[in-house]
Amino acid sequence: MTDTSKRLMLRRLAIDTNRENVAYLHRDCPLYRTEGFQALSKLEVRDGHRQILAVLNVVDDAGIVGVEDIALSEQAFAQMGLPEGTRVTIGHAEPPSSMEAVRRKLRGDRLSAADYMAITQDIAKNRYSKIEMAAFVVTSGQTGLDRDEILYLTEAMACTGKRVKWEEPLVADKHCIGGIPGNRTSMIVVPIVAAHGLLIPKTSSRAITSPAGTADTMEVLANVEIGPKPMRTILHARRGCLVWGGTANLAPVDDILIAVERPLGMDSLGQMVASILSKKLAAGSTHLIVDIPVGPTAKVHHMREALSLRKLFEYVGDRIGIHIEVIITDGRQPIGRGIGPVLEARDVMQVLECRTEAPVDLREKSLRLAGRVIEFDPDVRGGNGYALARDILDSGRAAQRMNEIIDSQGRHAPIPLGELSFDVKSEQQGVVTAIDNLHLARIARLAGAPMDKGAGVDLFKKLGDPVEEGEVLYRVYAVFPPDLRFAQEQSARGTGYNIGLPEEIPAYSFGL
Amino acid sequence: MTDTSKRLMLRRLAIDTNRENVAYLHRDCPLYRTEGFQALSKLEVRDGHRQILAVLNVVDDAGIVGVEDIALSEQAFAQMGLPEGTRVTIGHAEPPSSMEAVRRKLRGDRLSAADYMAITQDIAKNRYSKIEMAAFVVTSGQTGLDRDEILYLTEAMACTGKRVKWEEPLVADKHCIGGIPGNRTSMIVVPIVAAHGLLIPKTSSRAITSPAGTADTMEVLANVEIGPKPMRTILHARRGCLVWGGTANLAPVDDILIAVERPLGMDSLGQMVASILSKKLAAGSTHLIVDIPVGPTAKVHHMREALSLRKLFEYVGDRIGIHIEVIITDGRQPIGRGIGPVLEARDVMQVLECRTEAPVDLREKSLRLAGRVIEFDPDVRGGNGYALARDILDSGRAAQRMNEIIDSQGRHAPIPLGELSFDVKSEQQGVVTAIDNLHLARIARLAGAPMDKGAGVDLFKKLGDPVEEGEVLYRVYAVFPPDLRFAQEQSARGTGYNIGLPEEIPAYSFGL
Repeated sequence: MTDTSKRLMLRRLAIDTNRENVAYLHRDCPLYRTEGFQALSKLEVRDGHRQILAVLNVVDDAGIVGVEDIALSEQAFAQMGLPEGTRVTIGHAEPPSSMEAVRRKLRGDRLSAADYMAITQDIAKNRYSKIEMAAFVVTSGQTGLDRDEILYLTEAMACTGKRVKWEEPLVADKHCIGGIPGNRTSMIVVPIVAAHGLLIPKTSSRAITSPAGTADTMEVLANVEIGPKPMRTILHARRGCLVWGGTANLAPVDDILIAVERPLGMDSLGQMVASILSKKLAAGSTHLIVDIPVGPTAKVHHMREALSLRKLFEYVGDRIGIHIEVIITDGRQPIGRGIGPVLEARDVMQVLECRTEAPVDLREKSLRLAGRVIEFDPDVRGGNGYALARDILDSGRAAQRMNEIIDSQGRHAPIPLGELSFDVKSEQQGVVTAIDNLHLARIARLAGAPMDKGAGVDLFKKLGDPVEEGEVLYRVYAVFPPDLRFAQEQSARGTGYNIGLPEEIPAYSFGL
Repeated sequence: MTDTSKRLMLRRLAIDTNRENVAYLHRDCPLYRTEGFQALSKLEVRDGHRQILAVLNVVDDAGIVGVEDIALSEQAFAQMGLPEGTRVTIGHAEPPSSMEAVRRKLRGDRLSAADYMAITQDIAKNRYSKIEMAAFVVTSGQTGLDRDEILYLTEAMACTGKRVKWEEPLVADKHCIGGIPGNRTSMIVVPIVAAHGLLIPKTSSRAITSPAGTADTMEVLANVEIGPKPMRTILHARRGCLVWGGTANLAPVDDILIAVERPLGMDSLGQMVASILSKKLAAGSTHLIVDIPVGPTAKVHHMREALSLRKLFEYVGDRIGIHIEVIITDGRQPIGRGIGPVLEARDVMQVLECRTEAPVDLREKSLRLAGRVIEFDPDVRGGNGYALARDILDSGRAAQRMNEIIDSQGRHAPIPLGELSFDVKSEQQGVVTAIDNLHLARIARLAGAPMDKGAGVDLFKKLGDPVEEGEVLYRVYAVFPPDLRFAQEQSARGTGYNIGLPEEIPAYSFGL
């Protein structure tokens, strides 16, 4: 790197460049001119001991940055950790040293545990540009990670943030790999398991590409942004909670990588396993049920893929010391009836309150998962979990525990459904032979979910149900007229339903 | 995408975010809050007919962007093409439609001509974020492009900018794939070929990762930033020129992709062929000599790799209608003696002026390449090119033509060598058995080349030369003391020379 004796005055620029350090120099800055920094190149900002890497943006407005100054974006300024007005030097930045490992990965090599540790540490310190992060993510997805590499990446990501410790021998958790609308089993499993007495500190994500995450749906009923200390108080009293995981700073590099993978629509199984298990490791989980739905429009399409994914979870879980049970479930259609936070919260409460209109598939799947979690309890005989879970639910103890959790986290006033709606009807007679998870999720998102909690889709028909011509398949709710129009246009392109003969329903064999 | 009836006031923010459209919204902007745009996500900015995609940065300073405004970075504002104060709407951006093809490539598919056209058009319109571009570049490098894909990418990139037409049946060009320090043959080939009478409008790049590009070295002698019109005037009078290619807007998507590949240190042969030939196609070249140096520290290490690269050039060249002759050359060491603009310009002028101290390897390689270009002339008998080139050089006509070209482009005052220097000496006796191109290029860059034109490395010994213990191997020049120190530290880590026995010099068979 080229050094210089000249110095610039450090300034803070209140721009959130989201996980990429950006430095702003005026085009007439003498250092920029003589040192020939080209845009897109990175530079190193230094002051004695401290140094950061930042991508360079060139500014032509002295109101933003003066010619004798260097301004840093919010994150970069915070990372630099020096007051405004400090004199700093700049130099050409070497790529972060772990990029050498990424280049080896680009050439098709396997990487070592030390390589993954170095890469995640450099990413955690914001030494990677977006381009470098994308290269790492794409090449890992493309060449594939072998199972040891997945293990190394899992352990390395878990080391980048906080690690929670629970002073209990058994900390239960459940996790679904996602992709199935309406699949809010956690909100039923947690109160059942907590009522049984196992500790289940459930942290969930908000929706990224789906119409609702568990955190979005729980937020219909209660506050989910709970700090670590109040969370421990709630858990002490209730044995379970349902909170948003974003405040905990668990495996933050995982969040950074997800933010890169998301716009690329990448779906590497290895990265998925590392992402899920690094969070669980950091969260202090000891026993974990993983739900892998399989179906033509689920994330996993074929049983053989689900099986190899199960082996991956088991392999990595064993080595990081988490007891993992993988359950392969029916992902051929949405679970329950509602898609979108308010509608899904309605389904959940119907199941917990054992109402006759409660969706059977959501109840049965939740009981099955809760039963398996309960069987982690050494005092429960193998095979008895389902019956115990059902007793807890049918006795009303799960509903009571859920209400206690809601009150502890802070109960929210009821949120109404969107006032705008339209019905989508069948143009044929027959039975429902397929429901496209992706298409219905997309309609719900266009209608406004999850931002508008009252927006979404309410399914009137499920797989195998008989349908008359003109009968309503589902109703779409929205809060704002343009969103309703977008959802309408999308459902006009296709309902997402296939109507045909009963023998056309695809069969799957589950629970291997 | 979510629409809204609310509108924002368009503002221009004088920040050059270099090839990525960025939109700035205040954190308290009502649309940002209600629509839930997350950072790193892209948004669409619209006004009736016009629309652009931009990455979102969130701002906490109303001095940068007001809560009712949306500010665009320089490039994004220019692309929007509307005056400040225009009312625009924003919506969530769909990924550019061609990302669907990139996702197919991520899954390992081959892409079609239409796919490559769609991808390059979207990139040209700044519809790709840096992450999306990196994904395209990495996945193309990783899965490899088959030769038809290289052809499609070449044609598609050539369509993204201007296409030059030359109203002449034979427009000659030469190109080296790079990687060999001091290899300034173009500055000798062009005046020879132009003196022979063939049209050779040579556009060159500045150094990206090397200590000097042809444009940097020519700039020691003359102005190289020449617009299209004066360039035609010069060519009319001189038949040749040596200008910087950056002003011509030829295949601009190639430049964008190179800016992404560069920090990743990627070296995919397919992307290299598409990059070079798209530029030549856009520049209107009809006949092209490609120089592929082979050596342990060249870009191409083995003859078999050079041969498959030759076939790729020939395949794509034939289909895009450029007559290509590939010449495989000795890349075992730097060409000539100087590394760095001033030192390389000195070598070039010594060869053109037929001085006794002129480096023989630079002279011979240039004559060989010039001879092959001259043989493109239908009136020249095959095999006679070298002798014709030598006659033009030895008669002084090449030097005369070079001086005419320099005067036409605008002669520069002489630039001195850096005043600081140090010598690197041999610690052993023997003969030079290897010179590391990469290591010497790095020392020259650390010394300040190409930004400081007088900085660089002057080689006193070449392959096979006898060396005494303590004899000087090379001298390093710098302009600034810290640069001298960095270069010194680097050469202390290793001289870049191997001294041993004559039989240890690696043999290569060239000119197949």
